[in-house]
Amino acid sequence: MRVLTGGSFPLLRFDKGDEFPSGLEQWCAMEGIRGAGILCGVGMLSGTDLGVFDGTNYAHCIFEEACEVLSLQGNVAIRDGKPFAHVHASISGHDFQAHGGHLFTGVVAVTLEVVLCVFEKGLVRLPSEGSFRPLDSV
Amino acid sequence: MRVLTGGSFPLLRFDKGDEFPSGLEQWCAMEGIRGAGILCGVGMLSGTDLGVFDGTNYAHCIFEEACEVLSLQGNVAIRDGKPFAHVHASISGHDFQAHGGHLFTGVVAVTLEVVLCVFEKGLVRLPSEGSFRPLDSV
Amino acid sequence: MRVLTGGSFPLLRFDKGDEFPSGLEQWCAMEGIRGAGILCGVGMLSGTDLGVFDGTNYAHCIFEEACEVLSLQGNVAIRDGKPFAHVHASISGHDFQAHGGHLFTGVVAVTLEVVLCVFEKGLVRLPSEGSFRPLDSV
Repeated sequence: MRVLTGGSFPLLRFDKGDEFPSGLEQWCAMEGIRGAGILCGVGMLSGTDLGVFDGTNYAHCIFEEACEVLSLQGNVAIRDGKPFAHVHASISGHDFQAHGGHLFTGVVAVTLEVVLCVFEKGLVRLPSEGSFRPLDSV
Repeated sequence: MRVLTGGSFPLLRFDKGDEFPSGLEQWCAMEGIRGAGILCGVGMLSGTDLGVFDGTNYAHCIFEEACEVLSLQGNVAIRDGKPFAHVHASISGHDFQAHGGHLFTGVVAVTLEVVLCVFEKGLVRLPSEGSFRPLDSV
Repeated sequence: MRVLTGGSFPLLRFDKGDEFPSGLEQWCAMEGIRGAGILCGVGMLSGTDLGVFDGTNYAHCIFEEACEVLSLQGNVAIRDGKPFAHVHASISGHDFQAHGGHLFTGVVAVTLEVVLCVFEKGLVRLPSEGSFRPLDSV
């Protein structure tokens, strides 16, 4: 992964084979980023593990083939002491049909070009009894 | 709804049962925001009323089940003296297929985490004879 | 096309009949913009030429009817001396189903309202032997 622009709106280029969003979480940890918006991401992912939440659990669907990433949106907050990315993605394969959900993980195919908005204020995922942990500021 | 970061790029957390985008319009009215970009929104909506424009009217389709919000983009401008949100959304239900259109309204299920870009310059929706009202700056 | 807000986060309004993203590339050339993120775009496109990459070539699919633009994300960098927009789009027609891919070109129907993030640092597309040219900073 390479950082192509600095400041509050970094553009990150993830390369073939990089894992996303774990690679983003690791970079945020290294940079001490405690809150960010994920504004944009274009490129391709393969082995894309998407989830749809039923209020208690996620149903998963894995899209093995390399798909175009149509949109990438979400945020980074601190959860259990570490940066955690809450990201939703829409993707399309060779039938041009869009599928999407919560992005658990994917492997970058070709490239993934991501723009963040780094917040001065830190964000946290609050503890909760259920599987959903609300976002808050520090 | 809670505001989690300040400044020109507020992150707003809408909670279960909040209506969107009317809740956003109300907040903009309260804060005196007269122009904003809607850059990102992740979470879930139910009772999502989507529209596709045919040049004169919108066809509507209501997605009752709670769906993942894959992407949320648009802007806020003043229309008839009040903030009006022009928002497009893509959503997916339990088949992971993405659907989308102009977002008339939805009810937040679980959460909806939205990032705005507040413009210093105000935006307006111009009067027009048709159903489409062009965006302009003040 | 009209520029509705200034500064580092311009909101551009493309009008009926404008070509996108070539109109955006021309505006960036005129303004001397050498690096930008494309954060958001809502409106409608017709004759939308979308591509899905197979690692070597793009498969194309043209959506003739005017479709809602659900999301628009990407970036602008200098390629062969001129601004080049790498844009992915998701769109929906009257069945509300989302389709998407790399956006080669489309003709604006009704309107297209786009928000950019202009970077101080320039971006370039590196030369390469294959059809994919990596993004880098100057």
